[in-house]
Amino acid sequence: MPQERGDGQMLYFNCDYMEGAHPKILERLCATNLKQTFGYGEDPYCESAKKKIRRACGFPEAAVYFLVGGTQTNATIIKSMLRPYEGVIAAESGHINVHEAGAVETGGHKVLALPASLGKLDAETVRCYLEGFFRDPSAGHMVQPGMVYISHPTEYGTLYSPQELKALREVCTRYGLPLYLDGARLGYGLAAGEGVLTLEQIAECCDAFYIGGTKVGALFGEAAVFPRTAPKGFFTLMKQQGAVLAKGRLLGLQFDTLFTDGLYLRISGHAIEMAMRLKEILTASGCPLWLDSPTNQQFAVLDKCVREALAGKVSYEVWEEREDGSAVARFATSWATKEEDLLALERELSFVRRA
Amino acid sequence: MPQERGDGQMLYFNCDYMEGAHPKILERLCATNLKQTFGYGEDPYCESAKKKIRRACGFPEAAVYFLVGGTQTNATIIKSMLRPYEGVIAAESGHINVHEAGAVETGGHKVLALPASLGKLDAETVRCYLEGFFRDPSAGHMVQPGMVYISHPTEYGTLYSPQELKALREVCTRYGLPLYLDGARLGYGLAAGEGVLTLEQIAECCDAFYIGGTKVGALFGEAAVFPRTAPKGFFTLMKQQGAVLAKGRLLGLQFDTLFTDGLYLRISGHAIEMAMRLKEILTASGCPLWLDSPTNQQFAVLDKCVREALAGKVSYEVWEEREDGSAVARFATSWATKEEDLLALERELSFVRRA
Amino acid sequence: MPQERGDGQMLYFNCDYMEGAHPKILERLCATNLKQTFGYGEDPYCESAKKKIRRACGFPEAAVYFLVGGTQTNATIIKSMLRPYEGVIAAESGHINVHEAGAVETGGHKVLALPASLGKLDAETVRCYLEGFFRDPSAGHMVQPGMVYISHPTEYGTLYSPQELKALREVCTRYGLPLYLDGARLGYGLAAGEGVLTLEQIAECCDAFYIGGTKVGALFGEAAVFPRTAPKGFFTLMKQQGAVLAKGRLLGLQFDTLFTDGLYLRISGHAIEMAMRLKEILTASGCPLWLDSPTNQQFAVLDKCVREALAGKVSYEVWEEREDGSAVARFATSWATKEEDLLALERELSFVRRA
Amino acid sequence: MPQERGDGQMLYFNCDYMEGAHPKILERLCATNLKQTFGYGEDPYCESAKKKIRRACGFPEAAVYFLVGGTQTNATIIKSMLRPYEGVIAAESGHINVHEAGAVETGGHKVLALPASLGKLDAETVRCYLEGFFRDPSAGHMVQPGMVYISHPTEYGTLYSPQELKALREVCTRYGLPLYLDGARLGYGLAAGEGVLTLEQIAECCDAFYIGGTKVGALFGEAAVFPRTAPKGFFTLMKQQGAVLAKGRLLGLQFDTLFTDGLYLRISGHAIEMAMRLKEILTASGCPLWLDSPTNQQFAVLDKCVREALAGKVSYEVWEEREDGSAVARFATSWATKEEDLLALERELSFVRRA
Repeated sequence: MPQERGDGQMLYFNCDYMEGAHPKILERLCATNLKQTFGYGEDPYCESAKKKIRRACGFPEAAVYFLVGGTQTNATIIKSMLRPYEGVIAAESGHINVHEAGAVETGGHKVLALPASLGKLDAETVRCYLEGFFRDPSAGHMVQPGMVYISHPTEYGTLYSPQELKALREVCTRYGLPLYLDGARLGYGLAAGEGVLTLEQIAECCDAFYIGGTKVGALFGEAAVFPRTAPKGFFTLMKQQGAVLAKGRLLGLQFDTLFTDGLYLRISGHAIEMAMRLKEILTASGCPLWLDSPTNQQFAVLDKCVREALAGKVSYEVWEEREDGSAVARFATSWATKEEDLLALERELSFVRRA
Repeated sequence: MPQERGDGQMLYFNCDYMEGAHPKILERLCATNLKQTFGYGEDPYCESAKKKIRRACGFPEAAVYFLVGGTQTNATIIKSMLRPYEGVIAAESGHINVHEAGAVETGGHKVLALPASLGKLDAETVRCYLEGFFRDPSAGHMVQPGMVYISHPTEYGTLYSPQELKALREVCTRYGLPLYLDGARLGYGLAAGEGVLTLEQIAECCDAFYIGGTKVGALFGEAAVFPRTAPKGFFTLMKQQGAVLAKGRLLGLQFDTLFTDGLYLRISGHAIEMAMRLKEILTASGCPLWLDSPTNQQFAVLDKCVREALAGKVSYEVWEEREDGSAVARFATSWATKEEDLLALERELSFVRRA
Repeated sequence: MPQERGDGQMLYFNCDYMEGAHPKILERLCATNLKQTFGYGEDPYCESAKKKIRRACGFPEAAVYFLVGGTQTNATIIKSMLRPYEGVIAAESGHINVHEAGAVETGGHKVLALPASLGKLDAETVRCYLEGFFRDPSAGHMVQPGMVYISHPTEYGTLYSPQELKALREVCTRYGLPLYLDGARLGYGLAAGEGVLTLEQIAECCDAFYIGGTKVGALFGEAAVFPRTAPKGFFTLMKQQGAVLAKGRLLGLQFDTLFTDGLYLRISGHAIEMAMRLKEILTASGCPLWLDSPTNQQFAVLDKCVREALAGKVSYEVWEEREDGSAVARFATSWATKEEDLLALERELSFVRRA
Repeated sequence: MPQERGDGQMLYFNCDYMEGAHPKILERLCATNLKQTFGYGEDPYCESAKKKIRRACGFPEAAVYFLVGGTQTNATIIKSMLRPYEGVIAAESGHINVHEAGAVETGGHKVLALPASLGKLDAETVRCYLEGFFRDPSAGHMVQPGMVYISHPTEYGTLYSPQELKALREVCTRYGLPLYLDGARLGYGLAAGEGVLTLEQIAECCDAFYIGGTKVGALFGEAAVFPRTAPKGFFTLMKQQGAVLAKGRLLGLQFDTLFTDGLYLRISGHAIEMAMRLKEILTASGCPLWLDSPTNQQFAVLDKCVREALAGKVSYEVWEEREDGSAVARFATSWATKEEDLLALERELSFVRRA
């Protein structure tokens, strides 16, 4: 059912992984292609990338591992941090609870889903749950809460503020639970304006997190970071989960490039700029925002009339179909979004309005 | 402990995944980099690659899926074909039994390891095992044999003959077990001279197999093929196992390239040519072969004197350390092996002999 | 923290498994103790019990297996009916979702928890969920719904009516999902008055269910029934799950006794009679029912004053603590409940009221 | 296929779980049947049994848990002691490797099977394996050895000497691995004459072990003992594995009885006495022992002539069929074996010889 973009008339805003990689990455892949290196991450590119990431996080001793994709990174890290009778607390809307086909459960663990607001787990919600859990006389018969998972940006494009993350950290510390942050789109969170969480703050607050490459300029790849110590046997666990890339150099090289001269933040910043333009275009064209996202995913309500006009010309993800023919639509920008495409979208929308 | 190759003086024959990808692949990655496609394998490159693979296998209706790496491909396919109380029969030396960190077991299945000869599972060995199993009155208390796994080429570089594969197929059919072939180095098997198993014969005999890309010219990637039908829900299982690449196009594009104009076989043929030269060089230099492999992995016994002379100049994998200081060494060639490197090796060995 | 009942002054209504077994069961255990039988369910008592159960269900070809406890029965049956990428739909309050310590997840499957009312899953709720699921374009990335689990009586003592069960059956049939009924307290449902679901109706509607022994007169034991066919390899799966009792005769003998001369229904009827008396006593004493249960579990609101008066004299399960010092209390009767204990409770409550 | 023993003419020596329980156990079950206790092991019988077991082991602080059967005890303890990427070292012939239907693997762990002699794992074999493992440069890609499992008595009725167990302990300590002993038939080991391992020595050497009840006088039940500390969350893990009995009192009461006035050892001693008589009878009748077992399982070679004569009169387990019509037969005695049955066997054998 999906079709390749044809003559440029179709505009795609469906997601942030529709293109390949940032050109600098391809350039280095080509330049180093015939150099010989050992496999499985034991190569100089990985070494260099790890150093740069440790420095960027402010944890010179951090353990860094490179994996291929998000679901496998989540499943591996979660499995490494839980005992078999423990589960992972997550927002009901969390990626691990909805769109990873039960990867956490196949590892033997329950996702302890809590109500969330716009994708965000509230420290107080977590605290109440934990307090209730440990007060329950039948707690021993239940899955033990073993860690907390959050995504940042969330699946709704929203962000935890530094205060919110600290509050979660405090609850976790109080109950002895590690805190893990899924940063599939981390760049777009780091670049989302003033006062947002920095990489250093995230490393300070979290026991583990990953820096997403797939959606932020790489062909593929995620960098798992344990600021203090990695779980024992993590490499073997990765291998067991099918998460060790033979030519690990490909991952090292991509992250080395992204963390050289601020490329990761710079291209993320471009996506944010494009997203803010997109937001203006949508609202100016009479498509109200469904929620106010500061990152690269924008959600707007498109009425039936707009949807018909865009059909065959502009592609987006339908988040929610409504009975009146309108829909909540998700538009994603990325490091690769071109300004001309936004202008083209604006033009299409202007025609609609005239009708 | 591993080091990057320095000024060209160090020669590496450790494995077949020390370089990037065949230049044609990089070329196409670059050329298509900014084209937009949908994710998860729903793109025209995957579609085209699947068609070419189906044709090459002689099964126009075959189900083809692209995965990133071998361990994950094995674990996913095996999980898809077994019921929870079943195990997979494999050679004791099989990759899944030794070097995949228990990926099959983490999926809940036992590897039923049988004795093998130079990596090959004999049809008669399998038949005896099955006959004994089903005659055992306590069979119901034991892991049920649910499928047969073989690797081709094996971990020792050896090959099943067409007769041997057919014999395995017959045993499998008799006991109602699917037969699965791990083709991590399949190209090097297909190109290993006259009378070797063809892709069509493999597809004819096996219920599932994979065509290895990682070790045969691709940056990464394996093509899982189910000549007749794929197990129900295979895509979701892949997702659950963390084996779905977001930018699936990268896999499609690589396999499309490899299966265009016979590139896969051609580059495999080069590796075989290099391997045969290597074999000559080793034996001519007084390093007896440990076993006679027709494919890209060559095993020779290096005495202490040879090992010392090569130290710091030629790198290979130590397969087995011996008490007298000698060792069984594995040398691997690949699509990327250069003739000049073989000549350099020959020269180094000639110095040794002169000493 | 729990204490054995001392001199008879403490009354326990905490649950329905506080005593041993119905005396007839002990009698037969003693009478047959030194007879020799083969193990693992291959004995004449199991054979006889299976026949009686098949007859009682109206399915003379039903497959019947005996297991020791409820959690293990649920986990084994669910695992036997799902493919690895499938999950089980259940009420949020379902036992498998709350009080089995993640036994389903440790088998690799997600519990797809849906909102429920007083423990009951509504056919319409299930239908809407399934309709939405299969319409979702990202369904392939999500755990596939693979079966429906209900408990009858539910964890709240409530019952599905024949119409409600048929409606669930229809939804299941429409979507090709098996329906499984957890009958941990099945006897108390079957004996709960006129018009309730019969064993034949349950067998007619469900693909699998179990008849609870542990809570209904046995020392322990549950009878898993597959009215039409058992999943392939079910015995081996039981063994793998640690659910095969070596001296299977103990299970056969207990169920044979329970299904002889209507003992199972008769003793369940006694528990219901006691529960109805209990209900009267509670309401007459000014303790309003929290919900209206037709089975052996009764839920009432006890105010602070009542709770203090009963302290140290009457024990019950606190279902929900409230801020004003009152509580929702669960009182359970069973086959073993004595009328004199109800009278003693009534007396204690009468003192409270006088105060 | 198995048949109940008819009129007493058939003699069964097939296994040690063909009868119910020692009469003292039934007596106490009956005497306490209507006493009310809390469930899940929170009852005074469990408390008392734990104290007696702790005392018998010489570890007053030992953690003791009661489970229903051997497979579930092994699977739960092993899961509790391993990290997900670790496996358990065991003899090739170990129960967990052969006759538990993959219960260890379903928990995600590989059984690392080593060659053994008559069921016994040699300390030197284990040491060599571990030394080789950690020297292997690809160790990180392999299942990590995480614990050592032995059975005592073994599946062949043989015993570890105190020296042999200490030697295993030393290897384990050196490599940081816990040592676990499966005591399904422990009583028959403890009572097997002078100089055998005592319970105190076992507790001293092992990190975990279980005292078998099912095969040694109980209806069912195994007592898991962790002499020093139990793994965190062990109760919840038991629950998750379906290994918590609702009426835990049944387990407590049985072990309390077995560990009162030395009953466990006394009835085990009876089985040993019977086994030694059996051994004499077999050898005197010209049936050579296949191996020399000091415990309740005796293995003899029965020639075709003997087998035919015993057919329909004496039942035993066929351990190995041979081409010449002879067989290795296992005869098991137990706490319940009657002297008259041995005399009857002797008589049958005497007829054979005369023929």
